[in-house]
Parts: sequence; structure tokens; C-alpha cells
Amino acid sequence: MKSAPNLSQYVPILSWAKTYNRLSLTNDLVAAVIVTIMLIPQSLAYAMLAGLPPQMGLYASILPITLYAVFGTSRALAVGPVAVVSLLTAASISKIAAPGSEEYILAAITLAFLSGVFLLGMGLLRLGFMANFLSHPVIAGFITASGIIIAASQLKNIFGIEAHGHNLNQLLGSMFVNLGDINWTTATIGIMTVIFLFWVRKGLLPLLRRIGLPKRTAEIVAKTGPAVAILASTCFVWVLDLQSVGVKIVGAVPQGLPPLTLPGFSLELWTSLLGSAVLISVIGFVESISVAQTLAAKKRQRIDPDQELIGLGAANIGAAFTSGFPVTGGFSRSVVNYDAGAETPAAGAYTAIGLIFGSLFLTPLIFFLPKATLAATIIVAVLSLVDLSILGKAWRYSKADFTAVASTMGVTLLVGVEVGVITGVLVSILIHLFKTSRPHIAIVGQVPNSEHFRNVLRHDVIIHPHILVIRVDESLYFANARYLENHLFENVSRQTELRHVILMCSAINAIDMSALGSLGAINDRLCDMGVQLHLSEIKGPVMDKLKGTEFLKHLTGEVFLSQKIAVDLLNA
Amino acid sequence: MKSAPNLSQYVPILSWAKTYNRLSLTNDLVAAVIVTIMLIPQSLAYAMLAGLPPQMGLYASILPITLYAVFGTSRALAVGPVAVVSLLTAASISKIAAPGSEEYILAAITLAFLSGVFLLGMGLLRLGFMANFLSHPVIAGFITASGIIIAASQLKNIFGIEAHGHNLNQLLGSMFVNLGDINWTTATIGIMTVIFLFWVRKGLLPLLRRIGLPKRTAEIVAKTGPAVAILASTCFVWVLDLQSVGVKIVGAVPQGLPPLTLPGFSLELWTSLLGSAVLISVIGFVESISVAQTLAAKKRQRIDPDQELIGLGAANIGAAFTSGFPVTGGFSRSVVNYDAGAETPAAGAYTAIGLIFGSLFLTPLIFFLPKATLAATIIVAVLSLVDLSILGKAWRYSKADFTAVASTMGVTLLVGVEVGVITGVLVSILIHLFKTSRPHIAIVGQVPNSEHFRNVLRHDVIIHPHILVIRVDESLYFANARYLENHLFENVSRQTELRHVILMCSAINAIDMSALGSLGAINDRLCDMGVQLHLSEIKGPVMDKLKGTEFLKHLTGEVFLSQKIAVDLLNA
Repeated sequence: MKSAPNLSQYVPILSWAKTYNRLSLTNDLVAAVIVTIMLIPQSLAYAMLAGLPPQMGLYASILPITLYAVFGTSRALAVGPVAVVSLLTAASISKIAAPGSEEYILAAITLAFLSGVFLLGMGLLRLGFMANFLSHPVIAGFITASGIIIAASQLKNIFGIEAHGHNLNQLLGSMFVNLGDINWTTATIGIMTVIFLFWVRKGLLPLLRRIGLPKRTAEIVAKTGPAVAILASTCFVWVLDLQSVGVKIVGAVPQGLPPLTLPGFSLELWTSLLGSAVLISVIGFVESISVAQTLAAKKRQRIDPDQELIGLGAANIGAAFTSGFPVTGGFSRSVVNYDAGAETPAAGAYTAIGLIFGSLFLTPLIFFLPKATLAATIIVAVLSLVDLSILGKAWRYSKADFTAVASTMGVTLLVGVEVGVITGVLVSILIHLFKTSRPHIAIVGQVPNSEHFRNVLRHDVIIHPHILVIRVDESLYFANARYLENHLFENVSRQTELRHVILMCSAINAIDMSALGSLGAINDRLCDMGVQLHLSEIKGPVMDKLKGTEFLKHLTGEVFLSQKIAVDLLNA
Repeated sequence: MKSAPNLSQYVPILSWAKTYNRLSLTNDLVAAVIVTIMLIPQSLAYAMLAGLPPQMGLYASILPITLYAVFGTSRALAVGPVAVVSLLTAASISKIAAPGSEEYILAAITLAFLSGVFLLGMGLLRLGFMANFLSHPVIAGFITASGIIIAASQLKNIFGIEAHGHNLNQLLGSMFVNLGDINWTTATIGIMTVIFLFWVRKGLLPLLRRIGLPKRTAEIVAKTGPAVAILASTCFVWVLDLQSVGVKIVGAVPQGLPPLTLPGFSLELWTSLLGSAVLISVIGFVESISVAQTLAAKKRQRIDPDQELIGLGAANIGAAFTSGFPVTGGFSRSVVNYDAGAETPAAGAYTAIGLIFGSLFLTPLIFFLPKATLAATIIVAVLSLVDLSILGKAWRYSKADFTAVASTMGVTLLVGVEVGVITGVLVSILIHLFKTSRPHIAIVGQVPNSEHFRNVLRHDVIIHPHILVIRVDESLYFANARYLENHLFENVSRQTELRHVILMCSAINAIDMSALGSLGAINDRLCDMGVQLHLSEIKGPVMDKLKGTEFLKHLTGEVFLSQKIAVDLLNA
């Protein structure tokens, strides 16, 4: 039976299913009903955002949510189409096919497949840590900019005019050109829905609290707002026959189970989608894991990032074979699931049953659903992602982080989502390299009557004319090796009686070969000047590396365990 | 007169020219004669290596060396065509034109221009530190691999057969195919020259020392080896009419001053050359500055990297307007210049006069110069660059540095020089990020009867069941923020009586916004568990940043100046 723990490691359902009981079942069922009511309009809307037929949004929720229930570790995460990933899907596949065409749909399915395979591979290779390279400023800047782009892209549906493009200037520019074509009936429906949905969030919620509903119930009721708006506006269009005055409606949506599909297997298609698949996977994973960890922390549950990759990979591969498109764990739906009391991933499976019921029986009912209403639900949902205050926060904390936020946001808005996030990652890495290439270097002296050595500029300390103690506050590596050399010799040239230089290594966590070469050069140059080089307070792992190197053999001075010992001895 | 110091900052000649005297003049003249004798064959050879007419090698030495004398800071650096840069030039322009064609020559001139403008721009913007991103392992691996490729590319001239390609497998493969076409007369000349030149280095030099010549004189005599070989083989071919049996000769070389030229100004040409220009500039700069700094250190002179960029930029722009190609400060010629006693950059200007004399009067004399001889001088020169021992050294010091050396060397040999150096830089950066993304984290305890806190695994220290002291040996930033969180909570879960976690920040040199977010999350999670988070030994610059952040306001514990105070207080 040695293989059992291994299997349940990759298939978490095997661990929680054992203790599943009636109470869990009831809680999960209640959560599933609430989430289903919220998911149906959301799924339709995000399919529209991705440029796909509305039913694909439903299809993309059914098998993926079930597969995640089997393989995922979060007990509350709800997987399906989400705003940012749908936007990235549209940006990626509209480069290779016309929206609405057969090729476009095939590309979306293939994108889900490639993204699933990539996620699964990352998970099996335990590469979850790679997502850490998306820094907080990049994620914050990207999500805010994406929210703005998504909202802008839906304005065309609100006003019933034409617009296209994948960045803010294209979208707004093409919309301004067509401003004369505004369909005022559509605009009225759209704007009214937006106002209604904002009122549900800002006005209805406090109202329900005041009339005595518990907080959780009030919040759940407020989440049904989009479903109510859809019901109302559909009836409205149907009764008044607004379709005849140009209000665009969803129209005929096929009834039935998700049709089985195969992803495309052409090498050309794969090559053109691969980069986008990687990007969608990483961004989807980061979004999903953030939600999962936030919710898990509240109940002291553990999320395994590598297993989450496997869960999301399975979900996306599932989407590819059942007419879906790229999915991930969404924020709002997961929070609703959690608040509604979901206890295990089984809640997700019950939600899938609800969605199957929806696609079997409810699709004829949404024939008259105006697209403007769907657009309004998207706009209200994504505007909650927009948080421009991050710019101010980053500016106050550090100009480097501000640069990362601002460049990610700016490039995403003005060029596009894919270029934006790549720019953000590169800018973060370059800023990090740049900062560490000019480390803080302090000349230190002894704090009187103590063993401490502190910066001569910040503290009142004892120094000696024949000893220079220099502390580098950074690991030494190729990018800063030469900087240390220049900085050191500038100080050396100022101190005429100098006989000893002590490099205090308490903040040096690593020394790479380039830096070792530089230290050797420093030793030689000091030797030429009749000055000895000493090292002090070297960390264990660094000393292990230095042992046996040419540098240590040629070192003119000594290696001291502590700075105190060094100064006492050289001063004697 | 306030502008005078500024001007002499950018035009170093203004400072050293004031003290120029008769002794300096004599020394500079002697050095110039020796360097000229060495430079003529070298210039012809490197032009051939770049796929250009031989006289362009002479042209590329005249104005550049003079402009460097005006703008450069090194007193011994000799600027002109060098092996690695010539190889990069050939690799870059042969992608867009056929070697020997008009377009090929124009592309070489334009490349020198773009490279000059880039260097000049970097210098004026004081971006010399950017060259630090070429780590020691990357440079070492790249130079060795380039040496091997250059030697392999010249074998075709030694054997008088056809070969082509820009990596080792293409070169050797295409040569093997044509092995049957070997011209044995050519091969005899080539192999004899190689043997002679190696003997000059390994045999003649010790011999001259034994017969009593001083070391410096012996070395200078040995450096005239290539000129002797050229003279001898030219006479040999001329007298025996070996040209008629298929020995390839240099042929007619135009006499006269370098013709003035204009670089190409088509946007298409610029776009296709820009990447290569940047690469050539950076590699040329790194090679040049290393030589300049090595020679300057011997005489305690100072090299200003930003001014060096300006000097090399001017030299390359000069090359572009006088029928040259990309140039930089070369190792062997600079060492000869230094050893021959050059005192000021004026030696370079006198060398230029020597080269003008050469291109005015000596070019008819090299009509019968066999290409095999030039190839032999290249092979012997570049094989001294090849140092495979770096692989072993890097392997012993650190597997990370070995990976950087090996990948740079491997990709350069098997794919090509441009891809090789880019791979090297990317690999170094990724390795650095990867290493810092999983920092060394130690649980520390108090060394008995001292104020020191050391790793519990390496030292015999005092620990307390209700306090966990954790030291992170790395700055906290986006790539390692989440790693700390996971690592910390693994330790927290093992210590049941825990009430205090102290993060000892003595090795934390910076905390970026992502890490600040992570610390906030750690604080909140510990708070939920009834554990306080404290910080100790925060460095001044880090504390300055933390002041006024939300994180510090919500911190459940305290900030202690020293770890000793923290433990004493929490233990009281």
C-alpha cells in the first residue's frame, strides 16, 4: 500500500472524500445553487468578452469546475472563465483569426489545451515558484489596466456602436469615430443596468443590513443583482420588441450538453499560440493562487502551489475537450462560494450540475437578452479591479516600485495586455539588477563600549587612521563587483596613513566568480600600495565556497570571525 | 574660465598635452615604430577575418587611433581592428550581404558608425556601468569560444579549401566536405608559418633571454614574428611564382590615403544592424576597458569608464568616415605599446602616421602575400585567447558559474557568437534571480556569554521554546517574498509553545513592495495564531523606507535595535 499516499498527493479528492458527511453535503449544495445563479450571467458575459458565442462560457464552466474539484487543493475556489483571462484570450486569438469565425473558436479551444498542458507540466515539474517573478507592482498595475481596457471594450455594447482594438487608444479612438451611430434605446438599457448594478453594490447592501439581514446573507442577495438585471432586461426587450429598433440581443443559443471537441493539432497554430498560452497560464495561475491562499488562510487550510498548477491544468484541458476556452480560479465567484458556505470542492461539482441544467433548459430563455446588459455586468465587475491608488502607494514607498507599476500600467493601456505584462516583468528584473548593481556601502566604526560597528555617517563611533573598515550591504556578484572596486579605492586614496582595509562581510550572502575576480584584483592593488586586505564576519556558506580558492591563498591579510577581534588585533 | 575643467574632462588630451616634453616624445616615437611593424600584418589579417578587403584593416587603424588619442583616458591603449570584434562584424553583416560585395562593405562602415554613436551616447549618458552585466564567466566563455571559432574559420585559408559558416559545426562540416581539394603548396606555407610563429613565442623568446637580451627587448623582438613571416612568405611566393600553382595571394591593394566614406542612412539597414551594433559595442568596450585598466593599474593611472566610451565612440565614428570597420582597444597591440615604452596617447597618433606611410607606399609590396600566412598569424594570435581551464575552475567554485561559462561557450561554438553572448547574459541573470529566489534562511540562537546570534545548525547556541529567531540572508524582493512566507510557516508549525517570531534583518539590504506585502501577510497570519512578529537589527536605509508604511502600523510586535535587546526583553 505504499503507493496510496503518492496517489492522494496528486488527487486531493481522495483525502477529503473520506470524511464527507451529510452536513458537508447540505452546505455544499446551498453554495452551489447560489454560485450557479451568479455564474450563468457571468459565463455568458465573459464568453462575449472573449469574442466567443455565449454558450461557450457555460461550457467552459462545467467540466473544468468538476476536474478542479478532483485535482485542486483549495476548498472554495470556483474555476471558470474570468475577466482578465478572457481579455487575454481575445487579444491573443484575434491576431490569428476573425472573431466569430470557425478558426477563432478552434484557436480558443487550442489555447485552452496548450495552456492546460503547460500548467500541468509546470505542476509535475514543481515549478510553481516561477510565478514569483510576477512582482506585486506588476500584478497590481496589470490588473488595474486590464480592468480599464475591459470596461472600455464593453462601452461599444452599452451604446450599440462599433469599436475595435486591444488597447485604450484604439478602443476609444474607434468609438469616437462612430459616436454618431449611438442607438439610444440600447444606451438607455445599458446605462440603466450599470446604475442598477452599482446601486445593488453601494445602496442595496447597506439597505439590507439596515432592515436586519445578516451580513453574509445580505452580501449573497446583492450578488444575485446581475441575474435580476438579466431577467428584467430580457423581459423588457421581449415585451416591447426592442430588437426591432436595433437593440442587439444574444439570439438563438443551442440547447444541450457541451459538444465534445478536439483542439487543433497544426504546428503552425501551436507556434502562434504558445507564447500567449504561457502568458495566460502564468497570469491565470497567479490570480487563482492569490484567491485560493486568501480564502484558505481564513480557515487555516493549506494550498499547495504545485498541486494547484495540476488542478488548473486539468481544468483547462477539460475545457479544450468540451467546447470551452481558457479558465482559471476567479475572485468574485470564489468569494461567493466561500461566503455561501462551501465546505469541499464537491460544491464545484454541484455547481457544474446546475450549469448543465442551465445549458439544457435555460438557453432558449435568453434569446431576447440584450448584449448591453451583459456589457453592464462586465463593466461593474471589472471596475472593482481598478485601483489607481496603487500608483500613489508605490510612489511613496519607492520610486523603483512606482516605475514597475507605472510602466506595466502604461504599456498595458497604450500598447496591449501581452506586451504590458512582459514589459512589467522585464522592468522589475532590470530595476532589481540596477539597484543591486550600486549597493549601499558604509564605512563603519566601533560604537564605544560595545561589540557593534555602525555607519560613521549615522552613529558616533571610534575610527582609526590606519584602518579602513568597509561594509557592503549586498551580496557580491557580477553586476556590482566593479562598483565595489571603484568605491573602495576612492576611499583608500583619501586615507594617507592607511595600512589595513577590513571588508566586513556580515551582509554578503554570496560571492560569485566575477566578484571573486574583483576581490582578487582589489587584494593585488592594495598589496601594490602596501596595504593589507582583511575579511571579517564572513557567513558560513560564503566561507565554505572561499576555502581552497586562489583568492584566499593570495589574501595579504587575515580572515577574522568578528569585527571586534579584527580591530582589537590590528590596533594592538 | 569656468568651462575649462569641463572641456578637459571630455577631451583628456588637454590635460596631458600641457606637460608633454622631449623625453615623452622620444619614448612615444620608439613605441610607435614597434607597434606599426606589428599592426600592419595584424590589420590586414583582421580585415580578412571580417571578410573585407585587406586595406580596410589599415584604414580602420589610422583615424580611430588618432581620435582615441584625443578623447581616450588610457595612455597605452592601441585602438584598431581586433579578432573578436572582426568575427562579430563578419557574423553580423554576412546575414545581410554577400562577403566582398559593395553592400557588404557599406554594411561594415555603417556598423562602425552605429556602434560609434551607441558608444558615444552611452558615454555621454554615463552608462559605462552597464558593461558590468557581462559577468566574468560569460566573458571568459565567450572569448575562449570565439578564439576557437576564429581559428577554425582560418583553417580554410591554411589548406586552400572552401568553407563557410559562423559556428564550429558549420565550419568544420563544410571543410570536411571539401577535404579533397586541399592545395598542398598552400598548406605547406600555412603550416610552416604556424609552426614558425609558435616557435617565435615558445622557442625564440627563451633563446633571446639566454643569449642575454633583457626581457622587454626580447618580448618586443618576438612580437615582430608576424612581420618577418609575412616578408619571408611574400618573397617565397614571388620568387617561386607559387601563385600559378593555386596559392591564393592578397593581390592588388590600392595605394593612398583612406578614402573618405559615408555610412549608409537607410532605415532598413539601420534596423537590421542595430542589435549587432549594440552587441559589438558592449563586447568591444569590455575587452578594451579590461586591457586599459590592467595597464593603468601598473602605473597607478586612472581609467574613467564613461570617458573610455566616448573615446571608443569617436574612434568608431572616425572609422566609419574613413573606409574602416568596427574597432576597439586590442589586447596584444596595447601590451606591445606599453612594453615598448609608450608614455602618452600621442604614441597612437605617431602609429597612425606610420600606418599612413604603410598605406601610401607599402601596399604594392604585399601583392604576393599569401592568404595562408595571414591566416597563420590570426590562428596563433587567437589561440592565446583560448583558456579551457576556466571550465574546471568554475566547476570547482560554483555550479552556477559553471553553468554560465558552459552555456556561453557551448552556444557560441554550436550556434554562433551573437546568440552565444546573449544566452550567456540571460543565463547569468536567470541564475542570479534563481539563487536569490531561494535564499539561505537560518534559525539562530544566542552564543553563550556574547551578544552574537548564530545558526543553530552550525553553532552551540541558546534557544527558547516560545521564541523563534529567523535570519534571512538576502534582501527581500518579489522573487523570494513568497519563499520566506512558506519557509517561516513550516518552522512556526513545528514550535507549539511559540509566542514570538523575531525576524533578524541584519542581512536584509532592501525590502521592495512585493516583499512588504508578504511581510504584511505574515504579520496577519501570525496574529491569527496568537503569535507576535518582531523585527530586529534593521539597517538604516531599510528602516527609512519602512517608516510610515501600513505594515509598520499594523505590526503586532516591536522593532528592536539589536537582537540581544529583543531576546532579553521577550524572555524577561
